[in-house]
Amino acid sequence: MNSTNSVPHTPPDLDQDDDDDDLNSAYGVTDREATQQARQQTETLGQRPGALVIREGALKPRMFLYSYDDTTLAEAEFSSYDDLWASFEAQPERKHWIDVRGYGDLALMERIMQDFDLHPLQMEDVLGDYQRAKVDVFGDNRLFLVSRMTDFTAELDIDDDQLSIFTGPNYVLTFQDDYEDCLDSLRNRLRGNFSTTKRKPSLYLAYALTDVVIDHYFPTMAAIGDYIEGLEDRIFSERRERRMLNRILRIKKDIVRFRRLVYPERDKISEILRLPEEVMPEEVKVYFKDAYDHAMQALDLAESYRENITSLTELFLSDQSNRMNEVMKVLTIISAIFIPLSFVAGLYGMNFQREGPPEGPNPLNMPELYHPWGYPGVLALMTLMVVGQLYYFWRKGWLSKQR
Amino acid sequence: MNSTNSVPHTPPDLDQDDDDDDLNSAYGVTDREATQQARQQTETLGQRPGALVIREGALKPRMFLYSYDDTTLAEAEFSSYDDLWASFEAQPERKHWIDVRGYGDLALMERIMQDFDLHPLQMEDVLGDYQRAKVDVFGDNRLFLVSRMTDFTAELDIDDDQLSIFTGPNYVLTFQDDYEDCLDSLRNRLRGNFSTTKRKPSLYLAYALTDVVIDHYFPTMAAIGDYIEGLEDRIFSERRERRMLNRILRIKKDIVRFRRLVYPERDKISEILRLPEEVMPEEVKVYFKDAYDHAMQALDLAESYRENITSLTELFLSDQSNRMNEVMKVLTIISAIFIPLSFVAGLYGMNFQREGPPEGPNPLNMPELYHPWGYPGVLALMTLMVVGQLYYFWRKGWLSKQR
Amino acid sequence: MNSTNSVPHTPPDLDQDDDDDDLNSAYGVTDREATQQARQQTETLGQRPGALVIREGALKPRMFLYSYDDTTLAEAEFSSYDDLWASFEAQPERKHWIDVRGYGDLALMERIMQDFDLHPLQMEDVLGDYQRAKVDVFGDNRLFLVSRMTDFTAELDIDDDQLSIFTGPNYVLTFQDDYEDCLDSLRNRLRGNFSTTKRKPSLYLAYALTDVVIDHYFPTMAAIGDYIEGLEDRIFSERRERRMLNRILRIKKDIVRFRRLVYPERDKISEILRLPEEVMPEEVKVYFKDAYDHAMQALDLAESYRENITSLTELFLSDQSNRMNEVMKVLTIISAIFIPLSFVAGLYGMNFQREGPPEGPNPLNMPELYHPWGYPGVLALMTLMVVGQLYYFWRKGWLSKQR
Amino acid sequence: MNSTNSVPHTPPDLDQDDDDDDLNSAYGVTDREATQQARQQTETLGQRPGALVIREGALKPRMFLYSYDDTTLAEAEFSSYDDLWASFEAQPERKHWIDVRGYGDLALMERIMQDFDLHPLQMEDVLGDYQRAKVDVFGDNRLFLVSRMTDFTAELDIDDDQLSIFTGPNYVLTFQDDYEDCLDSLRNRLRGNFSTTKRKPSLYLAYALTDVVIDHYFPTMAAIGDYIEGLEDRIFSERRERRMLNRILRIKKDIVRFRRLVYPERDKISEILRLPEEVMPEEVKVYFKDAYDHAMQALDLAESYRENITSLTELFLSDQSNRMNEVMKVLTIISAIFIPLSFVAGLYGMNFQREGPPEGPNPLNMPELYHPWGYPGVLALMTLMVVGQLYYFWRKGWLSKQR
Amino acid sequence: MNSTNSVPHTPPDLDQDDDDDDLNSAYGVTDREATQQARQQTETLGQRPGALVIREGALKPRMFLYSYDDTTLAEAEFSSYDDLWASFEAQPERKHWIDVRGYGDLALMERIMQDFDLHPLQMEDVLGDYQRAKVDVFGDNRLFLVSRMTDFTAELDIDDDQLSIFTGPNYVLTFQDDYEDCLDSLRNRLRGNFSTTKRKPSLYLAYALTDVVIDHYFPTMAAIGDYIEGLEDRIFSERRERRMLNRILRIKKDIVRFRRLVYPERDKISEILRLPEEVMPEEVKVYFKDAYDHAMQALDLAESYRENITSLTELFLSDQSNRMNEVMKVLTIISAIFIPLSFVAGLYGMNFQREGPPEGPNPLNMPELYHPWGYPGVLALMTLMVVGQLYYFWRKGWLSKQR
Ligand SMILES: [Mg+2]
Ligand SMILES: [Mg+2]
Ligand SMILES: [Mg+2]
Ligand SMILES: [Mg+2]
Ligand SMILES: [Mg+2]
Ligand SMILES: [Mg+2]
Ligand SMILES: [Mg+2]
Ligand SMILES: [Mg+2]
Ligand SMILES: [Mg+2]
Ligand SMILES: [Mg+2]
Ligand SMILES: [Mg+2]
Ligand SMILES: [Mg+2]
Ligand SMILES: [Mg+2]
Ligand SMILES: [Mg+2]
Ligand SMILES: [Mg+2]
Ligand SMILES: [Mg+2]
Ligand SMILES: [Mg+2]
Ligand SMILES: [Mg+2]
Ligand SMILES: [Mg+2]
Ligand SMILES: [Mg+2]
Ligand SMILES: [Mg+2]
Ligand SMILES: [Mg+2]
Ligand SMILES: [Mg+2]
Ligand SMILES: [Mg+2]
Ligand SMILES: [Mg+2]
Ligand SMILES: [Mg+2]
Ligand SMILES: [Mg+2]
Ligand SMILES: [Mg+2]
Ligand SMILES: [Mg+2]
Ligand SMILES: [Mg+2]
Ligand SMILES: [Mg+2]
Repeated sequence: MNSTNSVPHTPPDLDQDDDDDDLNSAYGVTDREATQQARQQTETLGQRPGALVIREGALKPRMFLYSYDDTTLAEAEFSSYDDLWASFEAQPERKHWIDVRGYGDLALMERIMQDFDLHPLQMEDVLGDYQRAKVDVFGDNRLFLVSRMTDFTAELDIDDDQLSIFTGPNYVLTFQDDYEDCLDSLRNRLRGNFSTTKRKPSLYLAYALTDVVIDHYFPTMAAIGDYIEGLEDRIFSERRERRMLNRILRIKKDIVRFRRLVYPERDKISEILRLPEEVMPEEVKVYFKDAYDHAMQALDLAESYRENITSLTELFLSDQSNRMNEVMKVLTIISAIFIPLSFVAGLYGMNFQREGPPEGPNPLNMPELYHPWGYPGVLALMTLMVVGQLYYFWRKGWLSKQR
Repeated sequence: MNSTNSVPHTPPDLDQDDDDDDLNSAYGVTDREATQQARQQTETLGQRPGALVIREGALKPRMFLYSYDDTTLAEAEFSSYDDLWASFEAQPERKHWIDVRGYGDLALMERIMQDFDLHPLQMEDVLGDYQRAKVDVFGDNRLFLVSRMTDFTAELDIDDDQLSIFTGPNYVLTFQDDYEDCLDSLRNRLRGNFSTTKRKPSLYLAYALTDVVIDHYFPTMAAIGDYIEGLEDRIFSERRERRMLNRILRIKKDIVRFRRLVYPERDKISEILRLPEEVMPEEVKVYFKDAYDHAMQALDLAESYRENITSLTELFLSDQSNRMNEVMKVLTIISAIFIPLSFVAGLYGMNFQREGPPEGPNPLNMPELYHPWGYPGVLALMTLMVVGQLYYFWRKGWLSKQR
Repeated sequence: MNSTNSVPHTPPDLDQDDDDDDLNSAYGVTDREATQQARQQTETLGQRPGALVIREGALKPRMFLYSYDDTTLAEAEFSSYDDLWASFEAQPERKHWIDVRGYGDLALMERIMQDFDLHPLQMEDVLGDYQRAKVDVFGDNRLFLVSRMTDFTAELDIDDDQLSIFTGPNYVLTFQDDYEDCLDSLRNRLRGNFSTTKRKPSLYLAYALTDVVIDHYFPTMAAIGDYIEGLEDRIFSERRERRMLNRILRIKKDIVRFRRLVYPERDKISEILRLPEEVMPEEVKVYFKDAYDHAMQALDLAESYRENITSLTELFLSDQSNRMNEVMKVLTIISAIFIPLSFVAGLYGMNFQREGPPEGPNPLNMPELYHPWGYPGVLALMTLMVVGQLYYFWRKGWLSKQR
Repeated sequence: MNSTNSVPHTPPDLDQDDDDDDLNSAYGVTDREATQQARQQTETLGQRPGALVIREGALKPRMFLYSYDDTTLAEAEFSSYDDLWASFEAQPERKHWIDVRGYGDLALMERIMQDFDLHPLQMEDVLGDYQRAKVDVFGDNRLFLVSRMTDFTAELDIDDDQLSIFTGPNYVLTFQDDYEDCLDSLRNRLRGNFSTTKRKPSLYLAYALTDVVIDHYFPTMAAIGDYIEGLEDRIFSERRERRMLNRILRIKKDIVRFRRLVYPERDKISEILRLPEEVMPEEVKVYFKDAYDHAMQALDLAESYRENITSLTELFLSDQSNRMNEVMKVLTIISAIFIPLSFVAGLYGMNFQREGPPEGPNPLNMPELYHPWGYPGVLALMTLMVVGQLYYFWRKGWLSKQR
Repeated sequence: MNSTNSVPHTPPDLDQDDDDDDLNSAYGVTDREATQQARQQTETLGQRPGALVIREGALKPRMFLYSYDDTTLAEAEFSSYDDLWASFEAQPERKHWIDVRGYGDLALMERIMQDFDLHPLQMEDVLGDYQRAKVDVFGDNRLFLVSRMTDFTAELDIDDDQLSIFTGPNYVLTFQDDYEDCLDSLRNRLRGNFSTTKRKPSLYLAYALTDVVIDHYFPTMAAIGDYIEGLEDRIFSERRERRMLNRILRIKKDIVRFRRLVYPERDKISEILRLPEEVMPEEVKVYFKDAYDHAMQALDLAESYRENITSLTELFLSDQSNRMNEVMKVLTIISAIFIPLSFVAGLYGMNFQREGPPEGPNPLNMPELYHPWGYPGVLALMTLMVVGQLYYFWRKGWLSKQR
């Protein structure tokens, strides 16, 4: 997950790739992430509950320790877990953030689990990487919080990563599977001289992490909104892009996915707000109440977007029907004008003979053909027919574009 | 936000602007306000919770103090906050409304926050300007109420502004970002001689503010309803306006937005009605119960409008299909009449020779051409064909408009 | 509101009026009552809560007093409120129904409010005439009940009027804005010799009024159902009426409106059933339980009707598509038969010369034209072509109507 | 209501009746039972609550008494109610089922009401015959249970009849309006030697009756499912039956009606499961829990059917569109082939003269006509054009059926 | 039910079978399992509650006993129930899993029911094989759990089998109707040396069974997801498979069915989590909480798939409309080009005579025919017309494929 500043607000130009092989990455409307998830769950089939499995390609863990009190911060990356543990153990009077990124070392994971007294099922949730947002109270009023960090990729996908947070009396322990994340702004705030976060209890850090994750929902939403506005601007253009409906439904897929990520987040915070004072003091709860408002706002936006997509889809389908209508009108106008004309021409192309070989003259047989003004008269008649029909179509409004 | 009296009940004539650049302001069906909101939330990304940010272009604050007791009212605008505070402090036995409009002075905002003991998160909600309606109880039975004032603009948008209300033992403190608002009727009532508001506790003023905001939902709804009725009147007109579906979906967007604004308002009041007596005395609660009825009524109207829009959309789509049907009928009638006629004409345009050069006479070859009544006979046949087909189409009802 | 017996069960013949001005009263699919309501709420904008406003055109109040005990009834219309009050006050041992119809006298309304100890907000609800069904407990275990009386008009609208009921220790006070209502059957029952109503406590009268209102939902529903059945009978008729979809959606609008009126009624009764014994004794509650069943039944019917409308709409749209299909088939059959025939005719209308002027004979150039059986042969070929195509179309089933 | 064994699992052949008068009984998609219900409720308008009304055509009551203890059963039909009552009164130590079928004797109904201490509102529910499933607790822990027995008729309607059950200390009293019902299997079980029902308290009989009614939902569902499967098998057949959509929507109407009957049944049982031990002992409740599972199963089936109907409707509409597409293709292929050919033929039908009368030879005027290979050349060109187009259409897949 | 490894992830090639008899097994979109269920319930109609019925074709029961303590496991299949019972009875200090597969022996089933103290209604649920997931507490804190094991068959059906679990103080008793199941992974874990399951109380085994069933939802979901992705990849291919919509709706049917199976599973676990400590100790509940997360995840996936199907359906229908549009365009382009050309050709095919036999020369009659450049001029005109129209269509974008 990249830093949010690099989110591409302008949607990629999809018209370049006409190669059918790439179609699904560009126009796919189904949530292939879901199938991917089902496949990965299938891989661990048959293992006992709480069995720890490191996914293939998992990054080697990097370990950071932020130790702080009300005014100072000591920050370090440790290459040895023993050193980190020693440093953590040696300063029981300070508050700590143990920040683990990457899961690619099973023994280390098991050791952390032991040292910090985590349940194997909890560690399985961390490594499984597909846990929806939730809060569990365990041990001695400790919390296990799961958040999902979102990003909007250049391929118009929602990319989400799991942030697992364990709290303890004077520390917060977090796990994520990537080195880069959206938490740098919080780290910078910690480094600042007058940081609120440093002065608050360590539980506040768990809130601050949750808050940053929720704050990053808005750039995701802004990027989606920008794309929707771009779609609307182009939906009626004369030479519309290919696969407009695919584009609409692809972004709908993202909105649906976003909602499915954020609803549990809101429920999680709502559950936090109902926790008793000894687990969640009022002083921190007031901050979670603010986070709740922001989660609600994100959901409100998602609902707006969904309505937008519905409207765009209706417009697209009506426009599709209009385009067919236009084709029909061209056909009808040309047929209606030229088929009668052709008939008249055909009429005077008949070979009724004025004088049959054996018989006498047949004066009733097509005398017009012999009239000196016959041809000009027919041309005039034809002109009249054309003018009459054009007038009829003009009155019906078929000659102007009417969408 | 302008005074409601200026709401344009007749929808703007959108046919003038054929310029594609203005299309979205006139026909846009997506809620671009939502994306705008997401973008603005993105701008404050990375700031600590409770960080106060003044948006660019915020108005310089104007400060008004209404000090009243049961029968008298002293009203003044202060250019210096110190003066206002002095005047407020000096009269602890009176009730006060401190009415702040415009946020463009960070230092002032922070000072008010301090003096009136507001939480930074609350002040952030005030300045953020995107808080959905809510009520928080804080401090010593004080209330923080957020309402959203709505207006229906000439561009067929719902414009909404935030009204933030803080209550205290003998005062009400309000914030909004605009100088103009919909509260003048309440100010006038305060100025009246026999004002109920002056005789009630200061909490009643918080109610009265909420009530005025809700009362102003109805002109918004009336304007939307007028527009819908106008749409219905024009949906079947022969030469329909362009982009009828855009217009329908644009107003649907407004209704959806209105509902999203009013549902939290209703929930807020419902929460107020469940507050204990010491926070919300029965004497005032009975008024909030009335406000609840009005919020419900506004929501009922919004539901009615939504159903109306659904019906209009179905009518539009059926009418679109009918228009295609009409095009098809014109094509079919003309083709069905003239193609067979052309065939007959073509038949007698064939060159089968009565007398082949080398051979003898071929009496079977198109004797009709030599019959003295050949041509009149064919004309009669053609007339018969036309009459027969017209009768067939008339009986099918294709000759009359049938929508 | 007229007596139910005059409800026109046969829907008005809408085909007469082709005048576009009347279109909306006959075919309108939007709920213009809703906009009307929003407009009227807008008119009272800016007034203090509880301000009493008499709508323009309100009828002069007529006042009736029904005083009864277990076996006797004294019934009178009073032209002077003082007389009514005196008669009411003089008989504290009897039970009373004070029946006020028409609101057009502000002073009188204020006096009744004072005498019967009503809250200005309650009186505002009475006069406002747009309160959804509700129950409020106030004062000394008194009830304020609002019901909405429905009627189905000849213009296929749901007409609804508000019945406001206040209970007291030994009386029931009702308000409505019309002289005519649906309560005559209850009045007649009161006049009867063995009336249950007279023997029960006065609270039972409040129930009986509610019950009559609910009972009158069924003629409304029956009229709507009759109309729907009429629509279904005519939906497939060869020469269908104009604007069938408008008719379907217009009646849908009524069903939606009916549901919006009855849901609050059901919720009201459900709230009554949860009232404590001292407010609502079990003896009367058992009757409200019955009323609840009837409200549920009315809602069940409304749900059935909604499903019916959905089915009719789907049938209509499919039929519309079928009719287009039929047009296409006529076009295709005629084109498919005559265009190839015309080609053959055109073929033999070509002027390829057997003997070019300068050159010798061209025996390859259209020898058919000189064959003695040329013309009969071509006619036979054409007949064969027609028969073949007709067989093809008959086998495809295109020659029979296929809806 | 006939015995379930005679339910016609093969749907009636609806193709015979082309008579428009019978259309609605065969193809009707609206729930005319609902309107019928509204009409009948309208007939009793104005009567006091609890007024007993016998519907026209009600059957003369037949009265059966089943008196049993743990091992024996005495069963008799009584023509005199006095005899039945005497027999019932004389055996207070036994358990009894008083089984009344037919309502056509008002005096008798009133007497039973008195003797068994029923409330007039309850008796009204019995005779009204339109009460949704419900349970009321009354008197001394007695129950009033309403169930609705369903049947699927040959006309593809859900026929439902009301079974009203009153319990007492040692008896169960049931009412229904028909002589035939679905309860014979229970009667037979009672007659058996080792009947559980006889050994259980009389309340168990009320359960057993409810259970039989629920068990009979499944043949109804099976018949509906059979019909749906038949519809699916025929939806794509080349010469589809007429009014396929009517058939689909007609069965949908039944499913919707079935759900509306069964949801209250489930809610009723769920309410029974929450009754206190003294009203509903655990020993019987365990059986109602089983009935609850079966009601849920019936609802699950109904939901499945609804989804099936939705899929069939989508298939039908897509197929309708496909059929239009096919018509268009025939038209396009024939037009595209013959219209260019006709042009070529027409081209060489032009009369440009090689030698104008007064002028000299015009060698540029249609020299092809004089070329010895002119005609064969044109024929070859035409053949080429036809082959080319057929190849084009074949590659597009238009020549094969493509649904 | 086969082992999950054999689930066919590549959907079967349905194009082979054009035989209409097999259509429904390949393309059927209705849930015929539901009707089948209704039919089977109908078969047992009229039997007393708790009557045990063995379905025709039920397998002869195979009985397995797994007896274990913290470290050892004894595992055996018994051909005689007496032996199994003796072995079970003889080791009261150990924990046991009695694993019965196949129901085809009524006497045995009744004996097990007696020995393990099951209620006949419970045994009926086991044998009925259609019980949705549920939990009942009975006897002395014992549990009756029903799970449904799912599989995705090669015919694109969800196949589900019932697993019935009874717990006792030191044992778990399970029933299923098939010899093969998805529980082998659990059996293998039991056989392992360091099995958690063996060390936990016997209630944990009930959890472990439930967990394995839920784990197997994911391969089912993965197979469905694979199929959906395959559908999407092929939806736009030039020569699309037949019956694409059938395929889409068939897989939708499976998703709907899956949801209907898993929702009760989630509700069951949620009910388990609310059980009191004496029925469900916290030690095991923490595991069920994890199972709850997995059930939620499966439901989230199912919701994603449903949205996918909705998008695919919309794409299909829009593509269907596009294909019609394309047909129309071909027709229109060819007609628009050749019909005017034919008119011009027809015009010069008219027989207006320059010199009428009796009259003098008519110089106005078609002088073009006699002009030396007449024919080339007409050809040039025609070429111009074609070029003009092609340009017009090219600018409209009709000449390129535009989906
Ligand atoms: Mg797992
Ligand atoms: Mg992705
Ligand atoms: Mg990703
Ligand atoms: Mg990840
Ligand atoms: Mg935040
Ligand atoms: Mg906030
Ligand atoms: Mg903010
Ligand atoms: Mg706006
Ligand atoms: Mg705005
Ligand atoms: Mg604003
Ligand atoms: Mg108000
Ligand atoms: Mg009110
Ligand atoms: Mg008002
Ligand atoms: Mg009206
Ligand atoms: Mg009215
Ligand atoms: Mg009225
Ligand atoms: Mg009633
Ligand atoms: Mg269409
Ligand atoms: Mg009644
Ligand atoms: Mg009743
Ligand atoms: Mg019936
Ligand atoms: Mg019926
Ligand atoms: Mg009946
Ligand atoms: Mg049963
Ligand atoms: Mg059962
Ligand atoms: Mg059974
Ligand atoms: Mg199956
Ligand atoms: Mg199967
Ligand atoms: Mg099975
Ligand atoms: Mg698991
Ligand atoms: Mg887990």
